[in-house]
Amino acid sequence: MVSLSDELIEKFDQKDEVVLGKLLKEVENQTELGFELLKHKAFQKGKAHIVGITGPPGSGKSTLVGKICKSLAQKGLKIGVVCIDPTSPFTKGALLGDRVRMQELAKYPNIFIKSLATRGNLGGLAGSTADVVQVLDAFDKDIILLETVGVGQAEFDVLDISDTVVLVNVPGLGDSLQTLKAGIMEIADLYVINQSDRPGADESVKDLRMMVNESKKEDWKPPILKTIATQQEGVEELIDQIHRHKSFLRNSGQWAKIRQNRHMKRLRGVTNSYITEIVENTMRNDPLIQKRIEEVKRGEIDPFTVSNEIIRHLFQKQLTL
Amino acid sequence: MVSLSDELIEKFDQKDEVVLGKLLKEVENQTELGFELLKHKAFQKGKAHIVGITGPPGSGKSTLVGKICKSLAQKGLKIGVVCIDPTSPFTKGALLGDRVRMQELAKYPNIFIKSLATRGNLGGLAGSTADVVQVLDAFDKDIILLETVGVGQAEFDVLDISDTVVLVNVPGLGDSLQTLKAGIMEIADLYVINQSDRPGADESVKDLRMMVNESKKEDWKPPILKTIATQQEGVEELIDQIHRHKSFLRNSGQWAKIRQNRHMKRLRGVTNSYITEIVENTMRNDPLIQKRIEEVKRGEIDPFTVSNEIIRHLFQKQLTL
Repeated sequence: MVSLSDELIEKFDQKDEVVLGKLLKEVENQTELGFELLKHKAFQKGKAHIVGITGPPGSGKSTLVGKICKSLAQKGLKIGVVCIDPTSPFTKGALLGDRVRMQELAKYPNIFIKSLATRGNLGGLAGSTADVVQVLDAFDKDIILLETVGVGQAEFDVLDISDTVVLVNVPGLGDSLQTLKAGIMEIADLYVINQSDRPGADESVKDLRMMVNESKKEDWKPPILKTIATQQEGVEELIDQIHRHKSFLRNSGQWAKIRQNRHMKRLRGVTNSYITEIVENTMRNDPLIQKRIEEVKRGEIDPFTVSNEIIRHLFQKQLTL
Repeated sequence: MVSLSDELIEKFDQKDEVVLGKLLKEVENQTELGFELLKHKAFQKGKAHIVGITGPPGSGKSTLVGKICKSLAQKGLKIGVVCIDPTSPFTKGALLGDRVRMQELAKYPNIFIKSLATRGNLGGLAGSTADVVQVLDAFDKDIILLETVGVGQAEFDVLDISDTVVLVNVPGLGDSLQTLKAGIMEIADLYVINQSDRPGADESVKDLRMMVNESKKEDWKPPILKTIATQQEGVEELIDQIHRHKSFLRNSGQWAKIRQNRHMKRLRGVTNSYITEIVENTMRNDPLIQKRIEEVKRGEIDPFTVSNEIIRHLFQKQLTL
């Protein structure tokens, strides 16, 4: 096992990407070294601008992220990209084609790409993402792009980690989609209609504008942009708006507040994961509890009673340790 | 406070709907009486057929549920309907129009309707739903329809409670929607294209058929039905297929297995809720822990260290109680 030597930290500080890759793996696999890292003083920076980019599959997100990265890199910024694939229990990790395309970017200097498909980590996928972001931030990345795939709770969790949320759509998704995605719609700070040379783009912009005007966000009116990522169209304006949102967060004091909330959520997430593990161990390892669980399974006793017994047992066991 | 007298149980057993309504409120509000009920022997039946009906807003689900109910009631079956509105944190409990329409049904004998919009209950919305279903089941309902609104994790949780999952769609939702809803698509046992007099119905059926043929479900091939709920068209066939799925579950032994899994999930859900409450209390009430939490908030210390302290503290406190 590698241990967290001063040498390792030094190489990390000298921007050794091989070391960065290694340490990210440790964090991802939740090794002892990984936890040591996350607790280390050098890894508590919180300076990077974290930008979540989401939207339905097929909206051209990956292409857009690619163009944004290249442009930012040309401007001399240091960029981290985290591709998040929550691998639903039903469709197992499709869309790997996107990943391959993203690897192209990794050839650019200043761009580091990390794919994440881990499930069941301490604090779930949001936890893994937060860990990886923390390491990239400590590596002095200026901006970290989180590209999420799919929908559902995981997406919300991950977007909680973002300072700026960009929602990418394509023209003509219609009412049904907009209703469906209502939740995610309302948390975006920037809207993009990509592939805006397709019919219905202006209508989609109009629909979004109506929604934005009805929203309760007072101090930041989310801009709505048209892009054609494949032709680089609108990408610079999108980047400008991303920067503008960062300035807004800084000036309004929300930047600090977002970070405080994030730390609190992380604390809750980690604590709940720890305690759930302790509970699961109790449920697994005690023959008496096992017998009671079987009774619950067969519907012979209600879960409330046995739940109380498990918790009582849990505390008694800890008491005798 | 009402207590769980023999008289109350007797009235409940005599199918007093006023008592049913009262007891459901107790369960919903998680009162002492509510918990007493859920633990009571008379409330562990598990006989009713639980049918989850889901699909995007605007697909005509409520109308369809209405027609199904009336038909089942005419056949002499006893029906419970639970309308579930997870009230997203963003859109607060819209769609109340649907509810009003549903109240009409309540005039029919044998139909009892319960609306649920509670959040943050012990075990979340899935927990509340499971509780309400348990009471309706104890009231000897033959079939319980769960009508869910919206998407997201809550929907999945709730469908976990169902024996039979019906997914209602409308024609022409297109590729994007189907990709979006991929997860939910694949867990349905029955597919319905409602408003099938609208253009694109046959195409939607074809798309669904392709998807069903690719699916890995071996022993049950989900049927795809066309309905026009407003004209009662296709409703009887849908009911037949719902019954057929129940027979399949019974004959294949899955009926019992589903119930066992459900009891286990309930046990885990309740236990996690209990323990989370204990953790939150510790975080709230101890000045020393409070000080450490503030340090996490300000980014002065990592959450892992403080998380460990919270858990250690938790067990020490319980030790001295």
